This record gives sequence, C-alpha cells and structure tokens, in this order.
Amino acid sequence: MGEVKRIAVLGAGGLGRNMAKLLDKKTEMRLVAICDKGGYAFDPNGIPSAKIDALSAEESVATISGIGVRCGDAIGELLKRRDQIDGVFLALPNLPNEFLPSVVERMAKEGFRGVMVDALKRTRAVELMVKLNDLLAANKITYITGAGATPGLLTAAAALAAQSFVEIESVEIWFGVGIANWDAYKATIREDIAHLEGFSVEKVAAMSDEEIENELEKRNGILELVNMEHADDVILELAGVVSRDKVKVGGVVDTRSPKKPVSTTMKLTGITFEGKRSTHVFTLGDETSMAANVNGPALGYMKAGFWYHSKGLHGVFTSATVMPLWPH
Amino acid sequence: MGEVKRIAVLGAGGLGRNMAKLLDKKTEMRLVAICDKGGYAFDPNGIPSAKIDALSAEESVATISGIGVRCGDAIGELLKRRDQIDGVFLALPNLPNEFLPSVVERMAKEGFRGVMVDALKRTRAVELMVKLNDLLAANKITYITGAGATPGLLTAAAALAAQSFVEIESVEIWFGVGIANWDAYKATIREDIAHLEGFSVEKVAAMSDEEIENELEKRNGILELVNMEHADDVILELAGVVSRDKVKVGGVVDTRSPKKPVSTTMKLTGITFEGKRSTHVFTLGDETSMAANVNGPALGYMKAGFWYHSKGLHGVFTSATVMPLWPH
Repeated sequence: MGEVKRIAVLGAGGLGRNMAKLLDKKTEMRLVAICDKGGYAFDPNGIPSAKIDALSAEESVATISGIGVRCGDAIGELLKRRDQIDGVFLALPNLPNEFLPSVVERMAKEGFRGVMVDALKRTRAVELMVKLNDLLAANKITYITGAGATPGLLTAAAALAAQSFVEIESVEIWFGVGIANWDAYKATIREDIAHLEGFSVEKVAAMSDEEIENELEKRNGILELVNMEHADDVILELAGVVSRDKVKVGGVVDTRSPKKPVSTTMKLTGITFEGKRSTHVFTLGDETSMAANVNGPALGYMKAGFWYHSKGLHGVFTSATVMPLWPH
Repeated sequence: MGEVKRIAVLGAGGLGRNMAKLLDKKTEMRLVAICDKGGYAFDPNGIPSAKIDALSAEESVATISGIGVRCGDAIGELLKRRDQIDGVFLALPNLPNEFLPSVVERMAKEGFRGVMVDALKRTRAVELMVKLNDLLAANKITYITGAGATPGLLTAAAALAAQSFVEIESVEIWFGVGIANWDAYKATIREDIAHLEGFSVEKVAAMSDEEIENELEKRNGILELVNMEHADDVILELAGVVSRDKVKVGGVVDTRSPKKPVSTTMKLTGITFEGKRSTHVFTLGDETSMAANVNGPALGYMKAGFWYHSKGLHGVFTSATVMPLWPH
C-alpha cells in the first residue's frame, strides 16, 4: 500500500474511541486527527489511543495536552489540514439523518480529496449519502457508505451468499449486542431506542440521558428491535441483489452486560438454478464485540477505498459492491 | 451494465454444462460459445442449454446441429471470433497444473481483450496464473482466479470474516459434496482423487475410467479429503489476510448420492483488537449443489470483472479481493 495512510476520525464517542484503539494495532494506517463537539486533536505523527482513553466519556479530545484544541468548528479546522489527511472515518452520531450527509457535502466543497467511510445505520441516511455520488465523484472523493457491521460486514456476507442463487427470497439479519455500560455508547443506544415503537429520531434527540436511563430501566436494560429501518435493505437493493422489502433486520441489545444475548446471524434464502430452495448462514463469533465488528470492517473498506482512489475510482460505493481489504 | 455480455465457456463437462444452464436464467449475459476436445459450438444469438443437455456425456458440443463444428483446435477457432466474446469462463479440466495457464497465455497473446474467470482449485495452478499478471495487464485482460466455491465463495467469506480481527489464527474449510453419478463430473472427481494419499495428478491422469470406478468402489463411493492442496491458502496469503500454512481445506465427497454427506463450512478464528479469540462461521445450505456454489460465484466474479474492465483495471485479481456482483 506504500506510505502509511493518515486517518481522521470524526467523533470521539464509543465508536471513535474504539477506532483509535484498533488503529493502534495497524501499521498501514495511523490516527492523526480526532474531533468532537468540544474541539479536536491533531498530530501528524500519530495519536496513540491511550491519550484518548485517559479522558472520561464527558471530556473532549480538545483537552488532550499538547495536541488538543478547543474550538466550535472542529471540522472546519481539520479541513484546513486536509492535505495531511488521507482517509476520514465518520463516527459522529447521526441525529438527524441529514447531519452526516451535510458534513460530507461540506468536506467535498471545501477541498477534501481523499477516502471517506461511514458506519451509518438508517436507510434514509444512506439514501441521502448515495445522492452525493456526483458531487463526490466530481471532487475526487472515494466514499463507502454503510461500512460497519450491519450494514457492512453482514450486508457484504449477504451479497456474497446471494451468488449461489438465481432468485433471492429473503435476507434476515438478527444481531446480538452486549454492552457493559451504555454510557460509552450513548449515541448508538439512542439510535437503537429511536427504532422502538413509540419513538423516533426526533423524540430521542429531545430526551435527556436520565430519560434514556429510565427507558432502559423499564426494559431491564434489554432492547429487542424488530423490523428496524436499517440500510442493509437499500444497499442490497442498489447492488441488484434483492428488493428492499425482502430484507429484515432486528436483534437484541443488552445494555447491562458485555455478553451477547443472542448470536448475530445473517441468513439468506434463495432458489438455485436447479430450483432448490436453501439458506446460507453467516454467524459471528459471540466473543466479537460490536466495536470489533463495526470498526474492523470500516478499516477494511477504508483500505479498499484507498485502492479505488489510487485507480481513479471516485464517487459513492456501498459495502455490498466493494470487498474490504485487510489492513496490517 | 449496458449490453448483454457474450460469454464463452471453455469446457463442456459437468461444470461447463451447468454454467450453460445457469446462463439460461440470466438476462445480462448470454452463452455464445462452448468447446471441448471434439470441437466447439458458436452462436452469437445465444446457445440454449437444452441443446447441450441433449448430448450424452461422451458427445462433443461439435455435434450440435447447425452451430457445432468439429475441429482439433477449438480455442484457436474461438480466438478468431474473439471480437464477439466479452467474457470467458474456464471450465476445462486442469491436469496438469500448467494447462490452464498456458491456455490463458495463448488467449492473451492471440488478441483476446476481455474478462476471464477460472474455478481452479490447486494452489500451484493459481500461483502460475498469478504470474501472468503483467502479461494480462499489458493485454487489457481482466482476470479473476480461484472464483468458484473453494477457492471462491468460501475464500471471499474468509476474507470478509477476517475484518473483525487484528490477527487471524486459522481458516478451516470443510466441504460436503454429493454427486448422483460421477460420470457427469469426471474431471472434478479425478482432481479429488489426485488429492488422496498415494495419488498424484500424474498418476490419476494415467488411470482409466474403470480404474477410477474401482477406486471409488473400494471406498463405497466416499472420498474423505484432508489437508488438500487448495488455492484458498495462496489466495488468502496474497490478500494479506493470513499465511498459507494457517489455511486448511478438506471435506467429504459422496460420489453416489446428491445429498451432501456433511454441511460445507468456512470457520475463521482470530483475535480481536480487544484481545478476544473468536470464530466466525459461514455455512452453505445443504440443498445448494456444487454446481450452484461454483458457477454462481464464477458469474458474479465475471460481472465484477466486466466492471473492473470498464474502468481500465486489468491484470490478475483473486476471489479474496474482488466482491462478486450479482448478475440478473
């Protein structure tokens, strides 16, 4: 892959902080920037995750000694250093759906010319991102959307499993997530709650942390989610694999234990050219955390994105049409 | 994808004949040529599989009325029609390992400029194919090697599963194949027997069909294959996922029943960035035949190959770095 790729992570919640830890293990890529509401930290020599780990969940990366800067427009500040950033991972909470697409649009218009990867979950958000294709292609950005676990790893598994069949009848993704304490994953849990009956993105955004905690308390910390609005559907539809109504995503989140309440599976049922109905199953090991299954694939798609970028392939791609590569 | 892609299948054994049946179901691609030792059949308007199905296993496609031509150099004849062929699937038996690479080299040197896909199995054969990268790149051929079931679908599943981990400890592929009668898959079964203790590619090539049948008889039609020389190892190594010694391929072939004796699985064990050991598993539905799991992915890689070709991406790629697309 040549030179070490310089990665900026937008967002320093659970997802962003774990991405920093994962990047610690990689030699092909290096974390050079991370930001949050309070500001940003930037170091072209690399930011070890320990510096971020030392912060409490409430503390901004802007407080990191020597490299942190408090400011109201961290993205604007990082854009000034765009020539020192090769890849951007979007780990910002996406409430409302328009937020991340607006950040990406801004980065394209203000001169970023590298690779971007998101781990968006909602169908509508991915649809908005896909609409940026022409803008990003014109601005030489290679963008891969829906590149986490689901959508992401499991969507790719479905696209792969589909190859044995001439007709796809259904894709069922059922995930188990265990989180020791929800504090570290506030944004993720809020998005999950927004999927529950009686809730919406807007309603959850208006809730305090205490109200969220009360909601979790009522459910003994367990969130069972069915027929979620998850972008696996639109991504598989765009890839020509199956119409979105045949893709179902749901699962169980335990916000009080790191142990998965159920195994995460992707089941694709189809008909072979000989007329046989069958089901391929992809099962994730129970010991793999959400952090491993989201951030790992995201970096794999990032590496594939760098290759696409080097070949002049720009615009918006999805996790169902690009094979993630494995970065060292 | 624009125009219907015109596909030539080199080889009219079980693999090639099933590819013809699969192509019957596709609108984006059309079978225009198929060849075997006896000659070839060519029809730019498409060859329905029924015309090939009507032949016995011994009859050459050269005997197909109206479009079949007897000749001693079918590949040479097809090369004369290279401008009417967009993609080539190599379904020729590959004994010895050098045979298919020599066919590909010839096609490049004699002016074919499209997409080629193989379903090679042996490590050595894939290694020879990979060495053709510069020749094929210079001749604007996009080539995807190891693009069947294993290597192919299961190798890609391993490359995908690897994304959750920072270190890969092992990849174990264990397949079950059931074949109603071995006559239709002579070349495949011969390759399997060559993997057994006491056999080699050369020894099997020298055996008569009767001797093969006697060998099967001794084993009640069951071939149990362990530590096979399978190219999943070199393909995953080239993709940077894991060193080849950590990839094990084996399985059970029942040559007397279409029912799989065991389920086909790919198990990848690795360590996450948090230090947890875990195993992801990809399990193929028992009702999917070898024909579905080889030919389906091969066409998916063919479609991906057409896209790569349209973007000027030439040379040799593998099933672990390209995401197969799903052709309609």
